[in-house]
Amino acid sequence: MKTVVNNLPYIPERPAKPRIKGLTMVMDKGLSLREAEDFVSVCGDYTDYVKLGFGTAIITPDFDKKIRIYKEAGLRPYFGGTLFEIFLIRGMFDEFVGLIDKYEVDLVEISDGSYDFDHSKKLEYISLLAKRGTVISEVGSKKKTVVYSPDEWVRQMQLELEAGSSKVIAEAREAGTIGIYNDDGSVNIEIIKAIATNVSIDNVIWEAPIKSQQVWLIKQFGANVNLGNIPPNEVIPLETLRLGLRGDTFFQFLPDNLKQ
Amino acid sequence: MKTVVNNLPYIPERPAKPRIKGLTMVMDKGLSLREAEDFVSVCGDYTDYVKLGFGTAIITPDFDKKIRIYKEAGLRPYFGGTLFEIFLIRGMFDEFVGLIDKYEVDLVEISDGSYDFDHSKKLEYISLLAKRGTVISEVGSKKKTVVYSPDEWVRQMQLELEAGSSKVIAEAREAGTIGIYNDDGSVNIEIIKAIATNVSIDNVIWEAPIKSQQVWLIKQFGANVNLGNIPPNEVIPLETLRLGLRGDTFFQFLPDNLKQ
Amino acid sequence: MKTVVNNLPYIPERPAKPRIKGLTMVMDKGLSLREAEDFVSVCGDYTDYVKLGFGTAIITPDFDKKIRIYKEAGLRPYFGGTLFEIFLIRGMFDEFVGLIDKYEVDLVEISDGSYDFDHSKKLEYISLLAKRGTVISEVGSKKKTVVYSPDEWVRQMQLELEAGSSKVIAEAREAGTIGIYNDDGSVNIEIIKAIATNVSIDNVIWEAPIKSQQVWLIKQFGANVNLGNIPPNEVIPLETLRLGLRGDTFFQFLPDNLKQ
Repeated sequence: MKTVVNNLPYIPERPAKPRIKGLTMVMDKGLSLREAEDFVSVCGDYTDYVKLGFGTAIITPDFDKKIRIYKEAGLRPYFGGTLFEIFLIRGMFDEFVGLIDKYEVDLVEISDGSYDFDHSKKLEYISLLAKRGTVISEVGSKKKTVVYSPDEWVRQMQLELEAGSSKVIAEAREAGTIGIYNDDGSVNIEIIKAIATNVSIDNVIWEAPIKSQQVWLIKQFGANVNLGNIPPNEVIPLETLRLGLRGDTFFQFLPDNLKQ
Repeated sequence: MKTVVNNLPYIPERPAKPRIKGLTMVMDKGLSLREAEDFVSVCGDYTDYVKLGFGTAIITPDFDKKIRIYKEAGLRPYFGGTLFEIFLIRGMFDEFVGLIDKYEVDLVEISDGSYDFDHSKKLEYISLLAKRGTVISEVGSKKKTVVYSPDEWVRQMQLELEAGSSKVIAEAREAGTIGIYNDDGSVNIEIIKAIATNVSIDNVIWEAPIKSQQVWLIKQFGANVNLGNIPPNEVIPLETLRLGLRGDTFFQFLPDNLKQ
Repeated sequence: MKTVVNNLPYIPERPAKPRIKGLTMVMDKGLSLREAEDFVSVCGDYTDYVKLGFGTAIITPDFDKKIRIYKEAGLRPYFGGTLFEIFLIRGMFDEFVGLIDKYEVDLVEISDGSYDFDHSKKLEYISLLAKRGTVISEVGSKKKTVVYSPDEWVRQMQLELEAGSSKVIAEAREAGTIGIYNDDGSVNIEIIKAIATNVSIDNVIWEAPIKSQQVWLIKQFGANVNLGNIPPNEVIPLETLRLGLRGDTFFQFLPDNLKQ
């Protein structure tokens, strides 16, 4: 089917998997095995990471089999950062490492969105786990009362990348109304511009569950911006946005003489 | 997989099925047989009641087979109260009883959310059907023009429980913007507090389709509050809220020395 | 299961398929083959057209097999109008016709929602493709900056029907917040009344993704109004609205003596 798209001019090129930019990260918050199979049958080529959201993994029956379905299809499943924090606040960091070892999850997220602990400690965990596999780390609080300045966003991201994170994630939650976005889901331009100016854009995964956020980020940073917290049934619509196959980005990749 | 959760401290205990409190009631508004199978494979342990919403059951092909899938998985399916009202306003109460008998549905909902009939009549239906099986009854109108005082909510619930309802349901509709909630989905605290003060909390099922409503009710009444009108794909996320495995209830069940 | 409904009085009659009015058009934005099978198993009788939304079709694996699933179940799949515009702006109209020929899609949508080209040209395409199969054409822009007067809506619809469109579609997008609706999803009554007064109602398909829009249109134009952009899992709920089996239309089809 790719051939139909390949025959069209002015379609942005997307790198083949395994990609290091243009990543799509999906949030699975409890799919069944059959639903996971359905998902990879359609979206396998377009999806890089699958986050088993917050603590859902450990209460979803057969989640070990689901991890295998994703891995066999060439996707990288991992536990949402909240699960790391759930273990950490209970003083069970080693048990958390035991869990990811047991289920052979080579991608791990370190975050402090719920549990506010020392940032230097976060850097240590990143550094420690980076020796084990790929680490991604999330910046931004899940609480409306905790607001970071643009400089603070930049500083934390830079330090975490230096400590060993392969990518940093900009927090937005499942709803997309916090962190890099305002209460109404609109983009906090000041924060995003500060990040984009000071951190390599390929190293940032922007959580962007809402279409208007995806459109804004694609227009700003191009087809191959890294986007996360995409609902499973929005991966194909998102891919059309990346490729200029939807009204919102219809003109984005066309030459000037065709623009209106 | 339960063992992972079982090894964590500070996770609230959830009663095993069949439960009399901590119930989760899901709204099925037209799942296919395979989708129903998928649903029970993941959420069977966490779901108690499945409402076949409003009149959807009788136009969904093979709904009799779907009822069997739910029953065999230990869930209790039933017809939404609107179906009872659809028969009642047509003077076909006996035919409604014939329907639930034919499909061997042992749980029945009595409501007056659309059809405004005498409350003493509602009590009679409850009393009559309570001899046949389990009755749950819903209080609250689906119309914005009909507003009950907190006292009226309490009075109706008390009378219906006395008449034979095993639980009373507090109306919110599929959207969660009426009854015990305000237009914007926020909680009507005055009504909920009045109910909680005067009706045994284990006897109330709060319709709560929106996450913020679920969070508020869990924080107010604990992990084992009865919640209803949960969309099928939100049962696992809800269970993480009940267990403190999500940002919104991350600290809720932790000892004081770990709270921030 | 139909027999349960058939035994109830005051249920509006719905024409059997293939229908020329009372159409339901669904938007598929990337269902898997198994999800498409599930969909037709439940909604096949209630759905007439399936739009493969915007450019999703050509990036969805096995979309040719999905087209066959829909056709074998008696539904008419077609490519969203945006795909026509994607080819047209690239000067590839012939290739677009080649595509619909290759996949044996006998229903085709002509639109100018993203690409603003001469209306007389649109009429030519309609006329040309009407010789090949069934044409439906969409009126209304996807851009908030392009606003048509009620007269303009009527004029374009009349001309397109004359040119060979079997139905005209009133634009609302997937979100339902543009075209015939206001920003908040409420109905633009002036436009809809102008259309209804001047165009045969059976020839109009109203995009109506939001329940309040469906309810308004059913109350205004009856159970057999043509409705489009219905999400797959909302077809059964919509059918209950059409039949008076849900709170919102509970009284709509009852005789006056039963109304409250």
